Amino acid sequence: MDLLQLGSYSFTSRLILGTGKFSNAKVMLEAVRASGTQLVTVALRRFNREQLEDDLFGPLKELSGITLMPNTSGASTAAEAVRAAHIARELSGSPFIKVEIHPNPQHLMPDPIETYEAARILAKDGFLVMPYISADPVLAKRLEDVGCASVMPLGSAIGSGQGLATAEMLNIIIRESGIPVIVDAGLRSPSEAAAAMEMGCAAVLVNSAVAVASNPPQMAEAFAGAVVAGRKGFNAGLMQKSGSAIATSPLTSFLGAKA
Amino acid sequence: MDLLQLGSYSFTSRLILGTGKFSNAKVMLEAVRASGTQLVTVALRRFNREQLEDDLFGPLKELSGITLMPNTSGASTAAEAVRAAHIARELSGSPFIKVEIHPNPQHLMPDPIETYEAARILAKDGFLVMPYISADPVLAKRLEDVGCASVMPLGSAIGSGQGLATAEMLNIIIRESGIPVIVDAGLRSPSEAAAAMEMGCAAVLVNSAVAVASNPPQMAEAFAGAVVAGRKGFNAGLMQKSGSAIATSPLTSFLGAKA
Amino acid sequence: MDLLQLGSYSFTSRLILGTGKFSNAKVMLEAVRASGTQLVTVALRRFNREQLEDDLFGPLKELSGITLMPNTSGASTAAEAVRAAHIARELSGSPFIKVEIHPNPQHLMPDPIETYEAARILAKDGFLVMPYISADPVLAKRLEDVGCASVMPLGSAIGSGQGLATAEMLNIIIRESGIPVIVDAGLRSPSEAAAAMEMGCAAVLVNSAVAVASNPPQMAEAFAGAVVAGRKGFNAGLMQKSGSAIATSPLTSFLGAKA
Amino acid sequence: MDLLQLGSYSFTSRLILGTGKFSNAKVMLEAVRASGTQLVTVALRRFNREQLEDDLFGPLKELSGITLMPNTSGASTAAEAVRAAHIARELSGSPFIKVEIHPNPQHLMPDPIETYEAARILAKDGFLVMPYISADPVLAKRLEDVGCASVMPLGSAIGSGQGLATAEMLNIIIRESGIPVIVDAGLRSPSEAAAAMEMGCAAVLVNSAVAVASNPPQMAEAFAGAVVAGRKGFNAGLMQKSGSAIATSPLTSFLGAKA
Repeated sequence: MDLLQLGSYSFTSRLILGTGKFSNAKVMLEAVRASGTQLVTVALRRFNREQLEDDLFGPLKELSGITLMPNTSGASTAAEAVRAAHIARELSGSPFIKVEIHPNPQHLMPDPIETYEAARILAKDGFLVMPYISADPVLAKRLEDVGCASVMPLGSAIGSGQGLATAEMLNIIIRESGIPVIVDAGLRSPSEAAAAMEMGCAAVLVNSAVAVASNPPQMAEAFAGAVVAGRKGFNAGLMQKSGSAIATSPLTSFLGAKA
Repeated sequence: MDLLQLGSYSFTSRLILGTGKFSNAKVMLEAVRASGTQLVTVALRRFNREQLEDDLFGPLKELSGITLMPNTSGASTAAEAVRAAHIARELSGSPFIKVEIHPNPQHLMPDPIETYEAARILAKDGFLVMPYISADPVLAKRLEDVGCASVMPLGSAIGSGQGLATAEMLNIIIRESGIPVIVDAGLRSPSEAAAAMEMGCAAVLVNSAVAVASNPPQMAEAFAGAVVAGRKGFNAGLMQKSGSAIATSPLTSFLGAKA
Repeated sequence: MDLLQLGSYSFTSRLILGTGKFSNAKVMLEAVRASGTQLVTVALRRFNREQLEDDLFGPLKELSGITLMPNTSGASTAAEAVRAAHIARELSGSPFIKVEIHPNPQHLMPDPIETYEAARILAKDGFLVMPYISADPVLAKRLEDVGCASVMPLGSAIGSGQGLATAEMLNIIIRESGIPVIVDAGLRSPSEAAAAMEMGCAAVLVNSAVAVASNPPQMAEAFAGAVVAGRKGFNAGLMQKSGSAIATSPLTSFLGAKA
Repeated sequence: MDLLQLGSYSFTSRLILGTGKFSNAKVMLEAVRASGTQLVTVALRRFNREQLEDDLFGPLKELSGITLMPNTSGASTAAEAVRAAHIARELSGSPFIKVEIHPNPQHLMPDPIETYEAARILAKDGFLVMPYISADPVLAKRLEDVGCASVMPLGSAIGSGQGLATAEMLNIIIRESGIPVIVDAGLRSPSEAAAAMEMGCAAVLVNSAVAVASNPPQMAEAFAGAVVAGRKGFNAGLMQKSGSAIATSPLTSFLGAKA
């Protein structure tokens, strides 16, 4: 069977969902269910034991078949991310940690130096480390070398909807990687998720595109279908691109032949 | 229900399949079945009453739930196409005719002058005319005005696998068209079919991408899923693209808050 | 010498300028001069003998070294364009006519049927016909066959600044054409003009990009330089694209060698 | 005057040339002269005191008006790069050092961790540090913070000719950077160099595209012209892109008016 393997965990779904930016928790939960996802990321801040209206952890753990992947969003140094990861593991019980370290709230681009440092430490600490990174082939390889469970290069800036703007670099990362490559951030439409799968990504993470759609649960379904279709296309062996047209229909002068 | 309407015919599937370039008729039929398509195009030349090994019409009419759409591939003038259309209607009993007039076998690009002329005549003759055209907004509008059932602009050159290279023009055609716009030619991968649907195309026609895949029936399934996903995404209201990143996760200093 | 040949006319400059949308005639004339262009297109309407403030013909004919190319902008049928062409020739004395027939003021896309008809007639009438067309390879070839002096396919919609959105089709047109191919419409920046030249275009026509720039004469200069650079690059033999990196610097362990 | 400022050095030319991959030193020198460049990068290995046929330093220092920028190509760790930089300074007398650390000879992608470390050390050591990096906005900012004279993000893989594949990220880097941003690697054609300048890059570095052209000196000239044109376009204020066409010529029915 064609499974997504992360550490000793395996998943049939290759769509990972983020939980930010939904209008409310009810819509978020409906989208999660509609997506068929089995892995959901939540910012540590949303594990809120005091302000219940802001708490996402409570509702999410009610869902069956969902593994939580806390993320360190909000951290701007390795030390903060490491500390956040330990708190998150304690609260959630999940071995997964999505390392997000972005010093600049304007664009939320990841910091390669701090991310590498945090990932190295957390992998040693036994986490299944899933680092959010630039589409940087050498960084991806180094994160594999220190024991990460996957790499999560961005397609484009978080929330920008610019899709697979980094495709050229993603192709190199995928070609070289010995661990799953998961496109995280920037996807706007189901077709882009399908395209990521066709390139050979192991999974995609989507958040804004579902959360801000007119109809989030329906969009979640659309992404789920697109990821399956893209993966199926990848497995079925895509045709080569060609510079010049090749006939698909016979060109012989059938009219003469019929006369 | 969200149906593809062509004349008085309606279809639940928005994937149209071509029948050229398959390694043999058996694989072609498996792909047709796997795709769930309800509309299949066949070159008139393949309605072969004498050379049975070359006949596609016989096997195709055995399939239930399939409407045949003969095409005039091989014609290089309006007169040839009109004549081919009448022969095709007689042989197949189908009211559909895909008008393909391409003088140059190197790239199979359609001739706008001859295509317009043939479409005008055939629409008057009561055909459901489906013209294969360049992504030309004015030509598309004129073909609507003379009574075509749809327009079928190319995404890129037939068999080239260059995808939606004409996207900029397709967007204008879709915005203005009062009849279904169906991307025909050039699609290489399921994601491109999904992208066409997200743009607002009513359907896509695929041939080479399925026929020359390593596993044509599986690829047919992948395209079928992608078309459904793309349409669902279109209906669910895609997010807007943005020039700069917007946070998807809370950025407040959760660590401090937890302390 | 590397000249642009149109009929029996030859030009050293490969930049053609349009005269619409400038804030005033003075800025337009400065931009024309700064561009070094030798061929300028003017809408027939601007040959204005009565409303002098709207007249462009007067000032333009003062410029030395400039050939005027009237255009039929505003025509929506072949008959209107043919009539306009004859009036324009009488007024301007120029043998050039840029055939522009666009029925829809929303996007100014050219009408292939009417354009073909007008071009056919005007070529017989001895004009140097320069038709503005969609990037349609078969139409381009047919216009060559009826005696046009060039074809002028659009890069993208007039005034849209979407650049070479039709590049895939332009490449086919250029490969097949026996007459100069001139990209007309859609160019936004000097780099796009250079890219058109590198593809093998014989010239580019620019209007909005210069007219609405913050500094039109400086932008005209920039386009002039880019066209020369792009042509020079084309002639100098561009490197091939490659899927994988190739070293540009020696990789041997120089440190060891130095020790 | 519009100068490229690097530390206390200023340059009128914004084209930096690499010296690898030329067929021989004579062609390289002709290309350098034809390009009008004032800054040339040379791998330390080519400062060869023993194998004179492999020596580039000798011939280059004969050229007037050229500043040498040694590079550390071949280094795969920060320590190697730092050591190479010191040797290079001693040999060349140049304060510039282009930090190139790429562990993988397959694609020569830069290592962000080692590059950051080397740059930090070399900036403290008084070098004008020019680091070759992925198009990573946070890394670029951190390199600025440790005192680099510029950042040199790649457009695409070295020698790949894939152009500005990282444009989306380059835009963010340029928007945020307080030091010159110089696109290094991947450019294939003059138009791409112009496009980089139009985006707001301070300069471009080109090597393969010139070295492997059919006519390297002519291609060097083409790049020089394109860089000037792109910069001029940037300064002249480019028009905005638009989703829909805007008329450039008057549309009033001039024929009626003329009657």
